[in-house]
Amino acid sequence: MKVAIAFLFALVLVLVSRSQDSSAKPQKRLEDLREKTILVFTPHPDDDVFGAGGTIALLNRNHNKVYIVVYTNDDKGSYDPDMNSQRLAQIRRAVQEVSEGMLGTPKENILWMGYDDGMLEYAAQPKLTEEATATIRRIRPDVLLSVDPGEWYERWHKSDHRMAAFNTIDAVRAAEFWLYFPNQKLQQGLQPYRVPEMYFFYPSAQEANYFVDIEKAADLKFDAALKQVSQFEPAVTKYRPDWDAKDYAKAKEELRAKQLRKDGHYVEAFRYATGFNQF
Amino acid sequence: MKVAIAFLFALVLVLVSRSQDSSAKPQKRLEDLREKTILVFTPHPDDDVFGAGGTIALLNRNHNKVYIVVYTNDDKGSYDPDMNSQRLAQIRRAVQEVSEGMLGTPKENILWMGYDDGMLEYAAQPKLTEEATATIRRIRPDVLLSVDPGEWYERWHKSDHRMAAFNTIDAVRAAEFWLYFPNQKLQQGLQPYRVPEMYFFYPSAQEANYFVDIEKAADLKFDAALKQVSQFEPAVTKYRPDWDAKDYAKAKEELRAKQLRKDGHYVEAFRYATGFNQF
Amino acid sequence: MKVAIAFLFALVLVLVSRSQDSSAKPQKRLEDLREKTILVFTPHPDDDVFGAGGTIALLNRNHNKVYIVVYTNDDKGSYDPDMNSQRLAQIRRAVQEVSEGMLGTPKENILWMGYDDGMLEYAAQPKLTEEATATIRRIRPDVLLSVDPGEWYERWHKSDHRMAAFNTIDAVRAAEFWLYFPNQKLQQGLQPYRVPEMYFFYPSAQEANYFVDIEKAADLKFDAALKQVSQFEPAVTKYRPDWDAKDYAKAKEELRAKQLRKDGHYVEAFRYATGFNQF
Amino acid sequence: MKVAIAFLFALVLVLVSRSQDSSAKPQKRLEDLREKTILVFTPHPDDDVFGAGGTIALLNRNHNKVYIVVYTNDDKGSYDPDMNSQRLAQIRRAVQEVSEGMLGTPKENILWMGYDDGMLEYAAQPKLTEEATATIRRIRPDVLLSVDPGEWYERWHKSDHRMAAFNTIDAVRAAEFWLYFPNQKLQQGLQPYRVPEMYFFYPSAQEANYFVDIEKAADLKFDAALKQVSQFEPAVTKYRPDWDAKDYAKAKEELRAKQLRKDGHYVEAFRYATGFNQF
Amino acid sequence: MKVAIAFLFALVLVLVSRSQDSSAKPQKRLEDLREKTILVFTPHPDDDVFGAGGTIALLNRNHNKVYIVVYTNDDKGSYDPDMNSQRLAQIRRAVQEVSEGMLGTPKENILWMGYDDGMLEYAAQPKLTEEATATIRRIRPDVLLSVDPGEWYERWHKSDHRMAAFNTIDAVRAAEFWLYFPNQKLQQGLQPYRVPEMYFFYPSAQEANYFVDIEKAADLKFDAALKQVSQFEPAVTKYRPDWDAKDYAKAKEELRAKQLRKDGHYVEAFRYATGFNQF
Amino acid sequence: MKVAIAFLFALVLVLVSRSQDSSAKPQKRLEDLREKTILVFTPHPDDDVFGAGGTIALLNRNHNKVYIVVYTNDDKGSYDPDMNSQRLAQIRRAVQEVSEGMLGTPKENILWMGYDDGMLEYAAQPKLTEEATATIRRIRPDVLLSVDPGEWYERWHKSDHRMAAFNTIDAVRAAEFWLYFPNQKLQQGLQPYRVPEMYFFYPSAQEANYFVDIEKAADLKFDAALKQVSQFEPAVTKYRPDWDAKDYAKAKEELRAKQLRKDGHYVEAFRYATGFNQF
Repeated sequence: MKVAIAFLFALVLVLVSRSQDSSAKPQKRLEDLREKTILVFTPHPDDDVFGAGGTIALLNRNHNKVYIVVYTNDDKGSYDPDMNSQRLAQIRRAVQEVSEGMLGTPKENILWMGYDDGMLEYAAQPKLTEEATATIRRIRPDVLLSVDPGEWYERWHKSDHRMAAFNTIDAVRAAEFWLYFPNQKLQQGLQPYRVPEMYFFYPSAQEANYFVDIEKAADLKFDAALKQVSQFEPAVTKYRPDWDAKDYAKAKEELRAKQLRKDGHYVEAFRYATGFNQF
Repeated sequence: MKVAIAFLFALVLVLVSRSQDSSAKPQKRLEDLREKTILVFTPHPDDDVFGAGGTIALLNRNHNKVYIVVYTNDDKGSYDPDMNSQRLAQIRRAVQEVSEGMLGTPKENILWMGYDDGMLEYAAQPKLTEEATATIRRIRPDVLLSVDPGEWYERWHKSDHRMAAFNTIDAVRAAEFWLYFPNQKLQQGLQPYRVPEMYFFYPSAQEANYFVDIEKAADLKFDAALKQVSQFEPAVTKYRPDWDAKDYAKAKEELRAKQLRKDGHYVEAFRYATGFNQF
Repeated sequence: MKVAIAFLFALVLVLVSRSQDSSAKPQKRLEDLREKTILVFTPHPDDDVFGAGGTIALLNRNHNKVYIVVYTNDDKGSYDPDMNSQRLAQIRRAVQEVSEGMLGTPKENILWMGYDDGMLEYAAQPKLTEEATATIRRIRPDVLLSVDPGEWYERWHKSDHRMAAFNTIDAVRAAEFWLYFPNQKLQQGLQPYRVPEMYFFYPSAQEANYFVDIEKAADLKFDAALKQVSQFEPAVTKYRPDWDAKDYAKAKEELRAKQLRKDGHYVEAFRYATGFNQF
Repeated sequence: MKVAIAFLFALVLVLVSRSQDSSAKPQKRLEDLREKTILVFTPHPDDDVFGAGGTIALLNRNHNKVYIVVYTNDDKGSYDPDMNSQRLAQIRRAVQEVSEGMLGTPKENILWMGYDDGMLEYAAQPKLTEEATATIRRIRPDVLLSVDPGEWYERWHKSDHRMAAFNTIDAVRAAEFWLYFPNQKLQQGLQPYRVPEMYFFYPSAQEANYFVDIEKAADLKFDAALKQVSQFEPAVTKYRPDWDAKDYAKAKEELRAKQLRKDGHYVEAFRYATGFNQF
Repeated sequence: MKVAIAFLFALVLVLVSRSQDSSAKPQKRLEDLREKTILVFTPHPDDDVFGAGGTIALLNRNHNKVYIVVYTNDDKGSYDPDMNSQRLAQIRRAVQEVSEGMLGTPKENILWMGYDDGMLEYAAQPKLTEEATATIRRIRPDVLLSVDPGEWYERWHKSDHRMAAFNTIDAVRAAEFWLYFPNQKLQQGLQPYRVPEMYFFYPSAQEANYFVDIEKAADLKFDAALKQVSQFEPAVTKYRPDWDAKDYAKAKEELRAKQLRKDGHYVEAFRYATGFNQF
Repeated sequence: MKVAIAFLFALVLVLVSRSQDSSAKPQKRLEDLREKTILVFTPHPDDDVFGAGGTIALLNRNHNKVYIVVYTNDDKGSYDPDMNSQRLAQIRRAVQEVSEGMLGTPKENILWMGYDDGMLEYAAQPKLTEEATATIRRIRPDVLLSVDPGEWYERWHKSDHRMAAFNTIDAVRAAEFWLYFPNQKLQQGLQPYRVPEMYFFYPSAQEANYFVDIEKAADLKFDAALKQVSQFEPAVTKYRPDWDAKDYAKAKEELRAKQLRKDGHYVEAFRYATGFNQF
């Protein structure tokens, strides 16, 4: 009764209370998992770090196998008139490897889908879903992290974020049923797979229902984020590969100031879900 | 002043109060209609039954002419490794005819648009709208039922549900103005048509503003829904065309438990609207 | 740190309070600007007048340079069986020039993108964004007005309104970074440009955070709106180029009755923002 | 061995001699058929008449059932500045019914696909093939006539002619195998169908291999063609619904002069084929 | 009778003799024109020079107004691993201006459509045709030059060349009839325009039917072509902005050796036509 | 001078003589190559065997490394009403492995692109080219075999054959220049690659310029081809996995009769080329 009932269940829930669903809880907390496989989908090579970097650090410390799927190459986000797209893509890949490396993710676990920055909305469909589906069926994660396809983000989700969010959740659904993209089974030998748990980063305040205490990894997270130097002033306006000390200190201070806190601790917020059509 | 004023009206309303609009009421209640033409758009061959099956049964009992337009063939939603898409489509059509038949809808009133399951999002546009527009202009319904294109559903509406919902409401708009798809008039002889009333099933709790008491049709609805055996365990995992008694009883019990109730009666919830740009 | 920090900033804000952001305020009020360049994007040739006509009149009075970009030709919205699309487009252009002319905008400042009514959703992408980006980079506005891409409008925004809203905001983002559509710089000589302030008309009641008192321009606005005679009864049903006195009086009365008021004055509501990814 | 061998056969043939294939001959000549079903695909509502009007007249005289599928509405081909697309489409449909009526084809046998003139190249694919496939599977013709998808026409076939030619032959192929568009069988009850014989009009001189003597229908053909008055001077430049006598005489004379002759008789040229991949 | 008869005429011709058509001749030879408007469409910024550079030089000498429309930015054709697309586009634009400048075409007459190299095949359609149509309607050329959309080139025409060729001829057709892209007239004030004469460069040997004696401009043509240094060895492999003398001499010698000759003179070959559907 | 001169060279050649080019000859004959890497692109899992199976057998015997890239899954070409697409794809993959295995190609060298049969024409572009380009850059073949994109095949090339042919040659071009799909280098580490030699199977008789004597492999080829039993009668009409002896003998006899012969030997015909824009 999985399909139909899960669906009706969702319907009834919403008509009774949206908040009940928000109280859904994982059996074992994310930050306590060990030796599991974790698959993170990120629109750009930095959203993983900004949105869940502390959590990723904790997961790696706990000997989980973390994979990062990067949708786009981030080859446009510079104000520097002397920058070019090939060079920026190269830079963004290199610093992403350094940044994720600091969080404990090995370089070979970073999977690049290779789409151009800002153009994910226009990627061929359903090819994009097919590719993400193949990745899920191959990695077979115990837990999937992704940017939230939630309603509140519709406005600025437009473009890469929205597309990455929706596409990932579509791929989660497709991955379950082998008749979606059946050639993946018939020709590539990939079996269908049901993702058991999902945590969505960049949730709305109203929908965040799960908070990871990253107190012990916060400083590392800030340093890792700051490796993405081309995303920050002054390098975003006039590219330089490194920081001078003063700029670095100021930037780190700002990161600290902006990082969400709960009960006096740095936390990262998520929306937790166990099904692709779940509220 | 229809076009411009209806529009301004909506704008002002929203700036004053969203809930006022929710209090919009039909002159004659849906379940009291007789000898009218009712057109139901459903993403898959079962959403009509799950979302509005009790209401459809009442409408048929009252000698209304009910038409069901099914967007997709539902050819993917099985976990059975021995299933195939052609067979599943065949099964889904057959049980939809039985299921709707129990609710009183004759087989020839079920119109199949023939899109593949899970792929409606990628159907050619505006062709899809053009096809739904032609159906509206041909059937000329007094009342249209459809899945809700409401904002709250954005998240899981992704794919078939969202597309069916938006496309239907787009077709409602296009159907009014003959210069949309003018060849339907010039070559097929189809005149423009304004849909007077719409009820959207699968509404959000916040937006549901109309409830049909289905107490007298609830048992029939559950039995009709259970005809769609391939959508439920155990057949969704290992296909079998029928139930054993114990599974059936358990499934029916679950349907009963999940069905929305109001004032001690089984009800189906809708959002009522009279215009395509209405809140 | 513009890019990354602006983004984190948004995230934190939402997790703390959505309303705080709503209190964002321009340094100088819109209606007090002088000798600035204002760029208004409108889905159809009338949404500018209905949504911001009073404000546009005030801006023109204050010697600002106002440009109106019209996405579509509005060639379908007539119930008249004797109307045709070429004629309706011609009519809609002419009355838009008269209507905006009354508000003080010269004819040559109205820029027509030339898309067909109701078909903007299906315009080639990212071409549509590319075109709007070029316009922003050429006009280089101090302030941009556009229909709101906000979440609440998802439902009826479908089609032209939604597409115009999202596309404009996408173009605002792209315009900042020269590596989006680099041929605009390399071949057309258009430099990147950052839009400093945006006001979105047709906001939701929950999100409107800026109100322009149009008391002194309201009557002019109503008269200007009524120049779009083909959009109102009786001309929308049976075309006539002008009003008889009684119809006019009645229509104007309705416009007056519907126009939003605040503290006893006619106002136009906006959502104010300074960044493309701002709440 | 149909599929593979037919294919190898074609390959070998081409390596030996292209002209042998040109000598392929129908068992019974087209103009001698009686009580058969004939399906004609035409890009515009006049190519059927110009390309095969004499033959169609003979087929109707012989009590065959002739169906005409018209891809486009021909709503653009006028130099008249006062013409509009809706009116032109209306005119073109009306004269096509008169013109084909003169050749003996009843109005209800003319099937309009409803695409806009000059835009067939951009019609959604494979939807267009799917629609033509459904028509073939429903009509189940003994003989199919279509514009030639031959290599020599590549240049001017661009756009409607090329698309209609290729699409029809693609539909012929798809119609044979039920797994192309299987919902046509599973939901619409349409069985696969193999078209036994095809004649392509507008062939190249090098490839024409079949000539129908239309001597007895030539005058009728010219008169029928001239019913399409909006396609000829002077009406193509300044629309008028009828001819004056002098223009008519001159136009008919020109048609006579241009009509292909063989052995002193008016003929229509075709390329004959029995398979979709045949030379 | 323009439309229909021109068409029949073509049909008959082909069935009689293809070569007759090849004998079609302009009333006044291209190289003798004076004070006319010439519009050249080129896939890349160099095909105009390679294919018709001598002719363009002669046309400029004769005080004609020559416009060059360049479809693509040529931003991919380098073997240099240190090159990037933005830089290459910049280089290609600069040398095209120098190269055409040597032939007498002023920089401001070079119109850049701004498509990416190698991607014209995937440009949004019919938008691409719409843009070329607008250019024709605005420039209103007495003579149009373009790459040949002829059948023999199908193979290597794939991609930019084929697309540019077909698209230009499609735009020639559309430009005649105002109901193609009617907003160009209704909103931009562009009137329909019939191109009287066309010369296609890069014709096949079988179809070349017009030869311009460029003896007096050949040396200039070779020097102009060699300004496009990034297209030649050694700069195509390791970019350098200029030549050393030896490489230059060798390259020029090769150009000389390859340039077509007729009766002892350097010539450029064309296919001449007066209609878009002409053989 | 590679790019520009190769191009001019082609132009001049065609204006002098097409046949000269046909006399282009490889330095070392294909069938004499040893320890090279050979990459074969085939539209369906059988065109490789039918078109070049003898040659593939010889190449494998000579210790070359042969890779077969199969564009489609061939899941539609059956007349059997009890067949379904998933089963047919499974069958077609299995027999292709057996068939190529007989010719000496190991199963793991068969690379499946996974497109649906008959739908290659509608595959997302330029994604399809991007995928083939990546394969070429990864395999880096000394020789590439593919179906011929030649002009003569335009007619029946429509759909999978034409698309596979054009797409492969487009990928050959793109593979040379790293700025095509630069993320393949920047993110996947794939270097550009220039394919030195190409042989196109299924050439036209006029263009075939290279013949491989397969006398010693012909019998093996026929047996290998006949492993694709589902492509032949009777299994194409009513599926059975094997042959009865009589049918087999007859089918083999037909293959023998149809196989091209030259000077009394079985041969396979090719068009040889060394550049993507070569005649």
